[in-house]
Amino acid sequence: MMPERLAAYLAESGRAVDAALERCLPAPGGPARRLADAMRYSVFAGGKRLRPALVLLASDLCHGARELALPPACAIELVHTYSLIHDDLPAMDDDDLRRGRPSCHKAFGEATAILAGDALLTLAFDVLAQPPCEQRAAALVAELARGAGVGGMLAGQQADMDLAGEEATAERVEFIHRHKTAALMATALRLGARAADAAEETVARLGRFGELLGVAFQIADDALDVECTSEQLGKTPGKDVTGGKITYPAVFGLAESRRRASALVEQALAELAPFGPPADLLRDLAHYVVARKR
Amino acid sequence: MMPERLAAYLAESGRAVDAALERCLPAPGGPARRLADAMRYSVFAGGKRLRPALVLLASDLCHGARELALPPACAIELVHTYSLIHDDLPAMDDDDLRRGRPSCHKAFGEATAILAGDALLTLAFDVLAQPPCEQRAAALVAELARGAGVGGMLAGQQADMDLAGEEATAERVEFIHRHKTAALMATALRLGARAADAAEETVARLGRFGELLGVAFQIADDALDVECTSEQLGKTPGKDVTGGKITYPAVFGLAESRRRASALVEQALAELAPFGPPADLLRDLAHYVVARKR
Repeated sequence: MMPERLAAYLAESGRAVDAALERCLPAPGGPARRLADAMRYSVFAGGKRLRPALVLLASDLCHGARELALPPACAIELVHTYSLIHDDLPAMDDDDLRRGRPSCHKAFGEATAILAGDALLTLAFDVLAQPPCEQRAAALVAELARGAGVGGMLAGQQADMDLAGEEATAERVEFIHRHKTAALMATALRLGARAADAAEETVARLGRFGELLGVAFQIADDALDVECTSEQLGKTPGKDVTGGKITYPAVFGLAESRRRASALVEQALAELAPFGPPADLLRDLAHYVVARKR
Repeated sequence: MMPERLAAYLAESGRAVDAALERCLPAPGGPARRLADAMRYSVFAGGKRLRPALVLLASDLCHGARELALPPACAIELVHTYSLIHDDLPAMDDDDLRRGRPSCHKAFGEATAILAGDALLTLAFDVLAQPPCEQRAAALVAELARGAGVGGMLAGQQADMDLAGEEATAERVEFIHRHKTAALMATALRLGARAADAAEETVARLGRFGELLGVAFQIADDALDVECTSEQLGKTPGKDVTGGKITYPAVFGLAESRRRASALVEQALAELAPFGPPADLLRDLAHYVVARKR
């Protein structure tokens, strides 16, 4: 399913990101050691490092240095991890399973999970303000805050909750997907381009690619939630339906959802046209996002 | 109790900070409107704006421009507010009352309170990356992350929880106070000095003043928790004892705690000696912190 060259890139970039995450996470110890333990537990839980790869691919495409792209790659993964920890809490989606293991609050308790999420979010911004990124800190911090904050990811999570049980309309599911998932994926691409000092036009173009890809990704996620077993998914399936969540399958049905995801990927690919062959790995990734089985 | 000149400064700076907070908070509206509502509910809940005043006083002392000090003043209040929202959650201190009103999760539900805290923390960093602060963003973001993160405030909250019910020792209570409260107060002073481009030595000196003041502040808080009624306090009193929390009065008794708080204020005042009369408002504030009745 995944082309060899993409698999090789993800394996290599994943190792580089893991090493960089290892360096920026706090060493466990002292009276607050459970906090550092919980942060590490969730960050090193076997995530696919897809969003960091988007940062690095965007930077590569814009001829940026790997050294300058790794901190934003870490930052986006820290934000993604914190959002999963808080999302899994009993007051939110109440999910006991994440990536095939007990979710953070099942392993460490709710209070530690709340604080671990807070700490990962704080660390994400810290990473962007430290060398070698300090010259670009303002632009990178502003990008991350926009994608992750009340105008981005958090608006999607709030709407996802507040609209559960309400009528599933196209407008509503599009708002939720665009904010809950696509905003942070667009941010990953924009951060990579910014780390490489790309022109504003390029930042915007890669951001549009990321947003379209992100919506397609979330449609695929919704579809997998209907199609898969817990073992395949590594988290509890069928929760969207039981939770009354507004999903693409609920609005359009499964087949039409899959068709729409493919159409969005085609739109996303159109944004990559000016880049030519150097964008082939991003093209592979776009195809993979809707074809993946978990 | 509070000198006229300090009361006048706090009233004026509080109005300026409130106006700046009003400008940076999102306008309510759209499918995620409850999130913006919850953020505003907690930010405009009648806080004393003490930490923002510390930012502005430090900036004034270093001849900084008010315009450059207001964003970090807002950032520190946003972080303080988020920490109170998450601290009040049922999984944490489980407090229904905050500043005499229902706490955020009682007014908006737990899920929205979690997200509102996350959104305020994200916004705090955003504010530091926007004009007119963008030139200093790296230094300001790094300061805030250090004071608020896993090496600062969050370590204190984690230890405060994990050590509840354990033996109350001087070492433990000092770790908790230094991190839970003093780290962010030291950060307030350091942010104000950095916003004014003060020399590193001045940043460090004002940071030490803030840390000593912060420990004294928290001792006074612990003492008020023992001494006061709910009406006086605006939050549920006596919770430290029932929660098995490690407090100064638990380790040293009430009278010795009060004596130690006063001694810390004297040490804090010694850090201000080089500044002469221009630091008089900070001196007033230091005296007020241990003498306040709520």
